[in-house]
Amino acid sequence: MNTFGQIFRLTSFGESHGRGIGGIIDGCPAGLEVNIEAIQKELARRKPGQSKITTQRKEPDEVEFLSGIFEGKTQGTPIAFVVWNKDQHSDDYNNLKDIFRPSHADYTYTQKYGTRDHRGGGRSSARETIARVVAGALAKQLLAKVGVTIQAYVSQVAEISMDKSYKELDLSKTETNIVRCPDPKIADAMIERIVKAGQEKDTIGGVITGIATGVPVGWGEPVFNKLHADLGFAMLGINAVKGFEYGSGFAGTKLNGSQHNDTFRSDESGVHTETNHSGGIQGGISNGEDIYFNVAFKPIATLLKEQQTIDKANNKVSIHPKGRHDPCVLPRAVPIVEAMAALVLADHYLLNKTNAK
Amino acid sequence: MNTFGQIFRLTSFGESHGRGIGGIIDGCPAGLEVNIEAIQKELARRKPGQSKITTQRKEPDEVEFLSGIFEGKTQGTPIAFVVWNKDQHSDDYNNLKDIFRPSHADYTYTQKYGTRDHRGGGRSSARETIARVVAGALAKQLLAKVGVTIQAYVSQVAEISMDKSYKELDLSKTETNIVRCPDPKIADAMIERIVKAGQEKDTIGGVITGIATGVPVGWGEPVFNKLHADLGFAMLGINAVKGFEYGSGFAGTKLNGSQHNDTFRSDESGVHTETNHSGGIQGGISNGEDIYFNVAFKPIATLLKEQQTIDKANNKVSIHPKGRHDPCVLPRAVPIVEAMAALVLADHYLLNKTNAK
Amino acid sequence: MNTFGQIFRLTSFGESHGRGIGGIIDGCPAGLEVNIEAIQKELARRKPGQSKITTQRKEPDEVEFLSGIFEGKTQGTPIAFVVWNKDQHSDDYNNLKDIFRPSHADYTYTQKYGTRDHRGGGRSSARETIARVVAGALAKQLLAKVGVTIQAYVSQVAEISMDKSYKELDLSKTETNIVRCPDPKIADAMIERIVKAGQEKDTIGGVITGIATGVPVGWGEPVFNKLHADLGFAMLGINAVKGFEYGSGFAGTKLNGSQHNDTFRSDESGVHTETNHSGGIQGGISNGEDIYFNVAFKPIATLLKEQQTIDKANNKVSIHPKGRHDPCVLPRAVPIVEAMAALVLADHYLLNKTNAK
Amino acid sequence: MNTFGQIFRLTSFGESHGRGIGGIIDGCPAGLEVNIEAIQKELARRKPGQSKITTQRKEPDEVEFLSGIFEGKTQGTPIAFVVWNKDQHSDDYNNLKDIFRPSHADYTYTQKYGTRDHRGGGRSSARETIARVVAGALAKQLLAKVGVTIQAYVSQVAEISMDKSYKELDLSKTETNIVRCPDPKIADAMIERIVKAGQEKDTIGGVITGIATGVPVGWGEPVFNKLHADLGFAMLGINAVKGFEYGSGFAGTKLNGSQHNDTFRSDESGVHTETNHSGGIQGGISNGEDIYFNVAFKPIATLLKEQQTIDKANNKVSIHPKGRHDPCVLPRAVPIVEAMAALVLADHYLLNKTNAK
Repeated sequence: MNTFGQIFRLTSFGESHGRGIGGIIDGCPAGLEVNIEAIQKELARRKPGQSKITTQRKEPDEVEFLSGIFEGKTQGTPIAFVVWNKDQHSDDYNNLKDIFRPSHADYTYTQKYGTRDHRGGGRSSARETIARVVAGALAKQLLAKVGVTIQAYVSQVAEISMDKSYKELDLSKTETNIVRCPDPKIADAMIERIVKAGQEKDTIGGVITGIATGVPVGWGEPVFNKLHADLGFAMLGINAVKGFEYGSGFAGTKLNGSQHNDTFRSDESGVHTETNHSGGIQGGISNGEDIYFNVAFKPIATLLKEQQTIDKANNKVSIHPKGRHDPCVLPRAVPIVEAMAALVLADHYLLNKTNAK
Repeated sequence: MNTFGQIFRLTSFGESHGRGIGGIIDGCPAGLEVNIEAIQKELARRKPGQSKITTQRKEPDEVEFLSGIFEGKTQGTPIAFVVWNKDQHSDDYNNLKDIFRPSHADYTYTQKYGTRDHRGGGRSSARETIARVVAGALAKQLLAKVGVTIQAYVSQVAEISMDKSYKELDLSKTETNIVRCPDPKIADAMIERIVKAGQEKDTIGGVITGIATGVPVGWGEPVFNKLHADLGFAMLGINAVKGFEYGSGFAGTKLNGSQHNDTFRSDESGVHTETNHSGGIQGGISNGEDIYFNVAFKPIATLLKEQQTIDKANNKVSIHPKGRHDPCVLPRAVPIVEAMAALVLADHYLLNKTNAK
Repeated sequence: MNTFGQIFRLTSFGESHGRGIGGIIDGCPAGLEVNIEAIQKELARRKPGQSKITTQRKEPDEVEFLSGIFEGKTQGTPIAFVVWNKDQHSDDYNNLKDIFRPSHADYTYTQKYGTRDHRGGGRSSARETIARVVAGALAKQLLAKVGVTIQAYVSQVAEISMDKSYKELDLSKTETNIVRCPDPKIADAMIERIVKAGQEKDTIGGVITGIATGVPVGWGEPVFNKLHADLGFAMLGINAVKGFEYGSGFAGTKLNGSQHNDTFRSDESGVHTETNHSGGIQGGISNGEDIYFNVAFKPIATLLKEQQTIDKANNKVSIHPKGRHDPCVLPRAVPIVEAMAALVLADHYLLNKTNAK
Repeated sequence: MNTFGQIFRLTSFGESHGRGIGGIIDGCPAGLEVNIEAIQKELARRKPGQSKITTQRKEPDEVEFLSGIFEGKTQGTPIAFVVWNKDQHSDDYNNLKDIFRPSHADYTYTQKYGTRDHRGGGRSSARETIARVVAGALAKQLLAKVGVTIQAYVSQVAEISMDKSYKELDLSKTETNIVRCPDPKIADAMIERIVKAGQEKDTIGGVITGIATGVPVGWGEPVFNKLHADLGFAMLGINAVKGFEYGSGFAGTKLNGSQHNDTFRSDESGVHTETNHSGGIQGGISNGEDIYFNVAFKPIATLLKEQQTIDKANNKVSIHPKGRHDPCVLPRAVPIVEAMAALVLADHYLLNKTNAK
């Protein structure tokens, strides 16, 4: 169950302190020119040590492709890749071998599998998302050819949130600051808040907003695989995500139907809706408007504070992790959200070729 | 793409005004005694005309099983079923044949498929959820054998919401009122609110909360098919759903890690957590605590008010639907939420047999 | 596991003596005009009682469509159908309830599932192939639009076999005789042989040859889902099939490479091969030549002779079936072979749209 | 479409002259002790240069595991592996870049994908089967724990074939000679025949017989995924395979039902059949008897003789390959047949846990 997608499929592998993280991308059409530099750039957006508000671990996170690309182009054959692990300090985890850290996957993995790679969280580490970022970056390149663009940004950090919608923002500014918030002033407040959390040896959560523009009418499967259901599935599969909403979302539950309905209009630019509470998706199928959604991230479970917990033998123990950890996952999660959105859209782009008129 | 699940699979069929709605349940283990009355009871919870706050359409919605059950027991073979359509007034929709109703699937279906069954919404009608309720009711019976119970209730209608968590409520009261809210006082306010919306010829949305108890440790697949990702996927595939959150959800994004982490304790009853912000799932795998989640429903798009829109030829037109429609989908959606949760859990129950220790 | 195909998918249901046999066809593109009469005609080719060499059971085998077709056209939505069972004599099977008939599925079903519908073979009856014939007939109509034709015929009955290849035969004669062999003289011998087997209360097997013409270059997936691997999988899933070969097949194992290789030539009609030992498939992908293959059917297990066997309690018993059974399955299996080939080709037709250049 | 299996799944990658061949094994249960030496031994049976009758290419073919195994045991997480390519002479293929070799995949790949890695056959090279041998070797270890053994041997080379069934042979002798035929005398004739073919710069085909013993009653899915249908699918997906038969196979089509039926008997060792024309599978489900089958391999397409063909521009050209090629694929294909059988059986072993009584 480590495969994502129906047609454009990623199968991911790897543990935090194993040989590396990688995957196989299957179903990518032949003939796509691959911009490896652009893929590497997405990895750089995800990688640790990129700024003062992320963990200071240093990992080069360079992707190596093992198959499926020849003379710069995809061949229609599976594209395998690996990012070798380099800066692992496995011994740091020796004392955690038999301990179930609170709100981590230690307990559930051990109970399910009867065994667990305890080093750096093993398979449950968010380092696994490297595979998603690589595959998503390729999906972005496929989508770009049909005019689809995906962008995400941090819209909330702990209690600091934006009151503007994505429409009112200049998204080109997202990458101008280390927290990846397109409003420079709020970005500063968020950075300060993350620094404070780090100083308090605590962690904080927040929200990432994603937007896909240029999606043509018709992508999505009407019943179970509604376009937003697949997007939600994708986002909820990211480590630390607790919620997903699209279009009007939870707030939309408080509107009347007469306020919420999006009126159609038709002009020289085609058919459009006056408002977009639908979030670009109606009946599970894209309607040509922007697709937008929010993803809720909980605060990271690894604290640099002392915490009480239990070990395998059910003894009470106290843990006091040291080391290099993010106080807030949001800035590094932006490319992951984009990657997962790209995987979903690439998949539906191809799927739509099989059953549309 | 009308199949849901990996092992316990539902393939659904049917349109609102076609011959009927039904499906095939594949992968249900052999030897399960089927309580058909209990399945019928779930359909009764979903069916129109059940109270003054639902549409007054009268449909018997009786399930007929066509295969897979012999001498009262499942045979390990596919279980086909159909609920025949009876009270369809297809002519009511003649005038909508070429019109794209706002925030419906009319426009997207037509663009994707080049054709559309316009009668009663065709395949995009929520009547399709009958198939899910039948399959989910069977899944509940399978789960009951391993001690798993699923319940849902209406926790918000428009601006009226509960401030108590499910833990503080007596869920046995959910079915004592027509809105399916376990707090009788708030239920009354919700009913009043729905009646008012109906009188205003408008519609309203809300939130349904779902709870699964008795799920043992170990269900769920750690990476893409996290237990909550599959639950979210299931819920977002229900008509009119705009958001999903589990455990601490969106609110949890404002807590510090030190507040959010669930401390383990071990006593004679086994390993438990002091709090349950994790919502019973850690690292995508159930941890033995209650699983709880919220599902956001937008207000229904069909209003009995006049609305402006366009037709296929891009002409402006105004529509003024008549007929029998729900002002609020929430009360009838409770069994649908339960059914989808049951499908996910039954699937993971079986899947877990293949790869756990 | 009752679903066949990746994109054009059939999920089948039903038991021999249950309510009926049917299925759901999912993934058929929208806008296909459905010729229901042609589908019914395929069922007539499969149905019992059609001639003196088939079982004399009389079943009308009329297909009823329940969804997915509107105003004569597919809608891109699931197409459910059922053929109601009519002429079932379930009481004929009462005495077999606890007996394991030789070379039937009685023993294995009982051991696997702990239960079994013993009436007429239940799910293991070849009556299940009705669902395949219906879906395959629709697949044929989809394929006809892109110029693909599928034909099959009986090429061997017991020891009577044809020495001509399909190229040397007039396949339009296949339906001119009741055994479905395009050579009238050999057909007569086959009919006589089947009549004799029936008189001896014995059964006989044989071989069906299938041909697909007009398949363009490029269908098939190169590694596991080679076009011939999917064809073989489809054929081996038909009741009583023991073997599959394509192109030069088993006989080709005795040729040298220099004899076996198909030399390319290019002329105004395009690229072709001088010979076609490849059977129209190279590296798992169609090359534009005819696809041809053989399917081996064993003699049917139900004899009208006395046989020794055991019952559930491991007692020795003797059985002596009465009733209406085919002495040879071949004539009725011709449309089933065609149907399964059509399902495979329709699936690869659609799949190829997702990943080809 | 580079994934094989439903639960125990192999996704394979790699081209003949790329970085390497590898794959991801997903769905292998946790806690299996992995014998890497035994896996390496299977690779040695497949590898080139192992004897005078195989190609003289020298490739170490050492497997490196990248994930999923920790402290010698599977973790329930994806097991990635790679065999690095070492002895590639890519320049040998420069002259073939634009040429379509007869009976190779050059033409079909180019037409399907618009591009092709021409070096050593690229993805269409049988070197891809390395991934299958590694995964199959792991599957064998899983199966060994439940008493299942898989063996294959060469039963025919060109016109030299065995007249004994596997029952009459001492299969422990299979590995005592370089052609992998358990009858030493026939092995010698086969070796001589292969040497002769090589001297003639020609190639020859043959048949491999596979046997699985110890498969308990109940594995297999009764309709489409009959155990033998999945075995056939697996075998037909191997390069150069043209046919598959199990049990009585094509020869069984000439028996009467009264000869072919396998009579049940019950004694202290359990329920058995007197004969085994069923090949251990009835109604698609294993019945506890030995499973046996034959796989037909055509002569390899690469000859060291001059051949006429065409190039991309449709010009006639003649080719005269040099280099290091097998005159007969059979001896090296034995472990591949075993590996594919192991993958199918491991998959059904796990699948059976989900739906059996």
